[in-house]
Amino acid sequence: MKLLKEKILTEGIVLSDSVLKVDSFLNHQIDPFLMQEIGKEFAKRFKDEGITKILTIESSGIAPSVMAGLFLEVPVIFARKKKSLTLINELYTASVYSFTKQESNEISVSKKFLNKSDRVLVIDDFLANGQAALGLVDIVKQAKAHTSGIGIVIEKGFQEGGDLLREKGYRVESLARISGLTDGKVTFISNQTEDVLI
Amino acid sequence: MKLLKEKILTEGIVLSDSVLKVDSFLNHQIDPFLMQEIGKEFAKRFKDEGITKILTIESSGIAPSVMAGLFLEVPVIFARKKKSLTLINELYTASVYSFTKQESNEISVSKKFLNKSDRVLVIDDFLANGQAALGLVDIVKQAKAHTSGIGIVIEKGFQEGGDLLREKGYRVESLARISGLTDGKVTFISNQTEDVLI
Repeated sequence: MKLLKEKILTEGIVLSDSVLKVDSFLNHQIDPFLMQEIGKEFAKRFKDEGITKILTIESSGIAPSVMAGLFLEVPVIFARKKKSLTLINELYTASVYSFTKQESNEISVSKKFLNKSDRVLVIDDFLANGQAALGLVDIVKQAKAHTSGIGIVIEKGFQEGGDLLREKGYRVESLARISGLTDGKVTFISNQTEDVLI
Repeated sequence: MKLLKEKILTEGIVLSDSVLKVDSFLNHQIDPFLMQEIGKEFAKRFKDEGITKILTIESSGIAPSVMAGLFLEVPVIFARKKKSLTLINELYTASVYSFTKQESNEISVSKKFLNKSDRVLVIDDFLANGQAALGLVDIVKQAKAHTSGIGIVIEKGFQEGGDLLREKGYRVESLARISGLTDGKVTFISNQTEDVLI
């Protein structure tokens, strides 16, 4: 997605060979127009999958998911990282390790919002090791629902998450796939390669 | 806001005299169309305030804020409840006590996203005791920016937050103002009363 890649090149900050900071438009400050375009793009790519629900994880997955939900005309559920006192009924839970934050979070989704007739689009802001996506997919499985696709805003193509999910047979659509962050520069996996890989 | 009040009446669950659960459309599962209408309504109410930034708090404030940001054509910043390892630069911080979760959270915003020329619209999903809004206003003050208004999706009019903020001179616009949750029923402060109070 051209607009997203341009934004990454102009505003992304490479902190190390594995860390890209995009807090000016995605995960601290948010660019609503970019989110709208991202939502449209996810909707376009998954429009034939019969999606009934979008499942994401707080907090940075919410903005792109709500826009995708608007264009796909389906509700969005965000998994919580902590159990809320007002979510006392039964929950689906999964454990997700974050390499960035160096901690495990139990994520949870209220059972009443997912059921076996659901075709779920899992969305997240980043795909690196794939732990968050796997946790969300696990929750979809617990609900006996179907994971119809995984939509990622930025995939770190040099980490194992993308391969892991694709090898398991999931359709993963990443709007920007980064091949490397070496020497402080962001490089992308080209569209042509992307077409072959997907 | 009629659509929102109808949604509260049909889907809101009164858990006690002070707790209203709206996790089917606002703070766990999200209704994207409703969020769009909420965004339009905030934009309409604050369009003459010269807003340059929206400031909210993760996670439930994000969806309505991004939609408001889309229609006001301004960026959205969400304050984080935990410091991220990728937010290592200087932060504005404030302490916010949550009566629902019975814990204090330090919220933080990167200094680079707010400055003294900003006219900030603070948005949150709920207004009860006003602690979250006061924390956000405090961060705006630290940045020497101006709080031009406070937009709330659901105000618990029977708790002190609304009065507290209005007495301090802030323009508070709540899209639904609840007068009580007694006997398992939601009652609203009528529009007429609202006009007098604001």
